[in-house]
Amino acid sequence: MTTREDIEAAAARIAGRVRSTPVIELEPGALGPHLPVALKLELLQHTGSFKPRGAFNRILSERVPGAGVIAASGGNHGAAVAYACERLGHRAEIFVPAPTPQVKVDRLRHYGAHVTVTGSSYAEALAASTERARRSGALVVHAYDQMEVLAGAGTVGREFEKQAPGLETLFVAVGGGGLIGGVAAWYAAQARVIGVEPERCPTLARALEAGGPVDVDVAGLAADSLGARRIGELMLPIAQRYVERVVLVSDDQIRRAQRLLWDHLRVLAEPGGATACAGLLFGDYRPRKGERIGVIVCGGNTEPALFR
Amino acid sequence: MTTREDIEAAAARIAGRVRSTPVIELEPGALGPHLPVALKLELLQHTGSFKPRGAFNRILSERVPGAGVIAASGGNHGAAVAYACERLGHRAEIFVPAPTPQVKVDRLRHYGAHVTVTGSSYAEALAASTERARRSGALVVHAYDQMEVLAGAGTVGREFEKQAPGLETLFVAVGGGGLIGGVAAWYAAQARVIGVEPERCPTLARALEAGGPVDVDVAGLAADSLGARRIGELMLPIAQRYVERVVLVSDDQIRRAQRLLWDHLRVLAEPGGATACAGLLFGDYRPRKGERIGVIVCGGNTEPALFR
Repeated sequence: MTTREDIEAAAARIAGRVRSTPVIELEPGALGPHLPVALKLELLQHTGSFKPRGAFNRILSERVPGAGVIAASGGNHGAAVAYACERLGHRAEIFVPAPTPQVKVDRLRHYGAHVTVTGSSYAEALAASTERARRSGALVVHAYDQMEVLAGAGTVGREFEKQAPGLETLFVAVGGGGLIGGVAAWYAAQARVIGVEPERCPTLARALEAGGPVDVDVAGLAADSLGARRIGELMLPIAQRYVERVVLVSDDQIRRAQRLLWDHLRVLAEPGGATACAGLLFGDYRPRKGERIGVIVCGGNTEPALFR
Repeated sequence: MTTREDIEAAAARIAGRVRSTPVIELEPGALGPHLPVALKLELLQHTGSFKPRGAFNRILSERVPGAGVIAASGGNHGAAVAYACERLGHRAEIFVPAPTPQVKVDRLRHYGAHVTVTGSSYAEALAASTERARRSGALVVHAYDQMEVLAGAGTVGREFEKQAPGLETLFVAVGGGGLIGGVAAWYAAQARVIGVEPERCPTLARALEAGGPVDVDVAGLAADSLGARRIGELMLPIAQRYVERVVLVSDDQIRRAQRLLWDHLRVLAEPGGATACAGLLFGDYRPRKGERIGVIVCGGNTEPALFR
């Protein structure tokens, strides 16, 4: 299981490669409950999500072969791996499924990645990338289910604790579980960690019910970033031990949280990035008076039409 | 002239009313020059700009009569005054010129302000509000040319210095000069303060050339927030003493800075909010190697079409 020591080591390894993202302390009422809320603006990270933390930690932990690095993702993970490889001078090969929007493929190529468009789903692109890695020997960076990726994501928790000491409860969005797994491993029992999932991507909720990873149908507004069909094997024991509960939110609630973040804070989060806020605003968790709440805004990869 | 003591007093007066906005330390290269840059994200302030600092300081410095508070502005200043009055329980009357978009009028009314739409320009709305204040006795909050407004804006500088000690050079956008006046009064000779103006709103540049405030034609992309026709009387001696130079930027450069802030940082600034960055990126100031640069992103009142 990922430990605080793993996360300390990851933080040292990726220092200078990732940004220390700011925290803003919001006055009571700004985000719904009559409590102050510390918001970690991890969407200001390189490539607009927390993903470079795991990607850098994975790549810097291994000897990278001449064949370079390989990953499957048309979304935030792919961009993070491509970015990390560009910075570190490695070849990057990214497999994306055919429905990936051209703008995302272009972004990967902008970082110098070799992009292979294949299969009709993420699962098919992942299978193709795995087969390719077996032949090429490239270093595989998984989107969430690798020790180094979890420990890298855990540096968000480490940083948050330093910036906002004494948080009692944290809201964290869940896709494949890399971020919440890392953050829960960092805080361990020191804070209540609450997972937030879209109702239509209940990957962790179902796994906790079933007592093990199960395949889940995923859809909806935040599926592009949180739509992992199956929770990570490595994070599940962490979640079973340290995640207090999972809150489910509707697409409408996610959209409303996104709107509130903009209206009250001028933070433009993507749906997956606003999901943790939606959990605090609309979920069934009732904080006690004076409770110190933290929320991670983990991604901002949306395109304001302003720039279209 | 505004002093550090005035600004300290303002900070104490408005504490708890305004947000301490975060600073992000950007790695070299993120915003053009090969230098680290500290970016103060003041667009995360209440109402999306630095303006509530001055508004709260002015209102809290005076006994507010039954007639309440009055201001002229369809933009960031009007929103800040309306917001401050809502929080403090005062009547707010805001005069806006006829061309003001309905969405901005609605925003003022959302804060409970009484809105009077009059005149075809800001100058006419201001004249009408002055006449109205003379009759009603309401407390006038000027958009920039009042001691308390300058001192309130100066708290941005005070906060920035605490968050990022040792800055050598600061880039600050200039409209009527409230923000740069306050910030320059805070830093005094401790840092090089560089004003940035749109080429089409060269209000401070012309005043410095002329040796006194002069009327300037204003237009272009950032005119809604930086388009003051005449520089503040109170800030000019501060600028003459402490602003090292004014850099002019084109609308195209402002748009490119706005785009860069989004692409590399997921910060969605309004044109006026991106103007200081444009000055750093495209202006003629050449920092020396290792120079510690700070930039204030002072406003985010743009509407991402996402929410239209």
